[in-house]
Amino acid sequence: MKNIAILGYGNIGQAAEQALSISTDLTLLRIYHHNEIDSLESDCREGKIDGVIICTPTREVQTYAERLLRTGVCTVDSFDIHGQIVSLRQALNTEAVSGQAVAVVAAGWDPGTDSVVRTLMKAMVPNGLTYTNFGPGRSMGHTVAAKAIKGVKNALSMTIPLGTGIHRRMVYIELEEGAQYEDVKQRLLQDDYFAHDETHVIAVDSVEALNNVAHGVKLTRNGVSGTTHNQRMTFSMTINNPALTGQVLVSTLRAALRLQQEKRYGAYTLIEIPPIYLLEGETEENIKQLV
Amino acid sequence: MKNIAILGYGNIGQAAEQALSISTDLTLLRIYHHNEIDSLESDCREGKIDGVIICTPTREVQTYAERLLRTGVCTVDSFDIHGQIVSLRQALNTEAVSGQAVAVVAAGWDPGTDSVVRTLMKAMVPNGLTYTNFGPGRSMGHTVAAKAIKGVKNALSMTIPLGTGIHRRMVYIELEEGAQYEDVKQRLLQDDYFAHDETHVIAVDSVEALNNVAHGVKLTRNGVSGTTHNQRMTFSMTINNPALTGQVLVSTLRAALRLQQEKRYGAYTLIEIPPIYLLEGETEENIKQLV
Repeated sequence: MKNIAILGYGNIGQAAEQALSISTDLTLLRIYHHNEIDSLESDCREGKIDGVIICTPTREVQTYAERLLRTGVCTVDSFDIHGQIVSLRQALNTEAVSGQAVAVVAAGWDPGTDSVVRTLMKAMVPNGLTYTNFGPGRSMGHTVAAKAIKGVKNALSMTIPLGTGIHRRMVYIELEEGAQYEDVKQRLLQDDYFAHDETHVIAVDSVEALNNVAHGVKLTRNGVSGTTHNQRMTFSMTINNPALTGQVLVSTLRAALRLQQEKRYGAYTLIEIPPIYLLEGETEENIKQLV
Repeated sequence: MKNIAILGYGNIGQAAEQALSISTDLTLLRIYHHNEIDSLESDCREGKIDGVIICTPTREVQTYAERLLRTGVCTVDSFDIHGQIVSLRQALNTEAVSGQAVAVVAAGWDPGTDSVVRTLMKAMVPNGLTYTNFGPGRSMGHTVAAKAIKGVKNALSMTIPLGTGIHRRMVYIELEEGAQYEDVKQRLLQDDYFAHDETHVIAVDSVEALNNVAHGVKLTRNGVSGTTHNQRMTFSMTINNPALTGQVLVSTLRAALRLQQEKRYGAYTLIEIPPIYLLEGETEENIKQLV
């Protein structure tokens, strides 16, 4: 049994706690809030903790992970800025090797398990087009951007898939007192987050009444295996977003601990890890059940 | 550039040849027919070959793979008897370790890439039900069983998915001269291959006229991430069956050679291999493109 800590207790931290509650090989030692990082670090140094699930905002992941990896514990995170994953992996690799630990970065569902599906699809169909169609579901990035617009009291930006990787933004806003809908709408449509997509701005009385953590994705690939065209494949899901993220983080931490046990120290993404390492149970039994 | 041999030249061998033709890191040295196994083995011993794609009937895989692995070359196969994969892996593991080579067994699409999807789905949704629905497409095993029935000159058994892993068998038969349809039908329905499924037997003038290597699959899982129910996911594809099998074999041989280079000798299934190893190209570039 391995002792696990959770750092951060928002949606994802709570979901990770629930995912740990059904695990029989990982046990939750303690949840640490952001301001308890020093005490987490010292508990790691004292050997009380084997792995940490980092559930802080994405931009804080690197700083926390570096500190923790140096103490020799494994970390996982659901860092989600696609363009910065390679550099995060490089940075954490250095610390993980020096701490004789393993970090797995970007281990949510996208980036994360979707990345594994994209990799597998490319192995099956080396030439062709993959489209990732998100939603319907709330976009965190676009919601934060909408909330930052002058005159917006609260906002929710929904991502609606239109196919071939094109998305519509449905932005529900609560106006601040005195703010004019048309002015706020124009400011929002000019924001870089929204200027490039079809965007609809809808004024509502209560954003809270619309809140829902449901999300989904549909990945499609159509292309060529060898010299044979018209090979078509689709992966799709409809999910509770934080619940899936929390579960993937827990499954991934299991794999990280396994890699550490094999002395394969360093930082990885999910596509670099044997999928069977994500699971509880004996290798041959899992092969019998799943292969 | 690695030198690859193909053993066996049926549908799969031809598809593997086509898949090698689009690879830039693996090159086809020679195709060997079954009766050329001695010459293949000696070419392996002489170091002319790095890896062999075994495209013989499933029941011959083990004998050939054992001989080849002892010479130090890597092997891949699309062995497809689900219940015997664990024992094949054990047998080849011994030879692969002694030859300092790597074997990957059952590396088609099911067992194979579907197994990876099932593993990933279980990592995302540890509790729940997965159904594998095959088809519509030709079942090799059932076709062979139908051909063996007395009075059948030629046959084609199509697998039709009815959902929740239940399948209908549509069996098209050409009768031998003098054979009575009703007698043949009764014999076929009593055969163990067909006795447990809804089976329809249709007499036709020409089975050859129906021939088609199209196939498909739909994998579904619905279950619980952490403590959250109603997490639903589906993977489906419509494909040219041998073309996909040949491509997966070639991608998998690339991974086998990589594992050999890392001195991780032994026998593996696809769920035990980092998915990124299946791809051409640099690690960081692939992470940038796919994660």
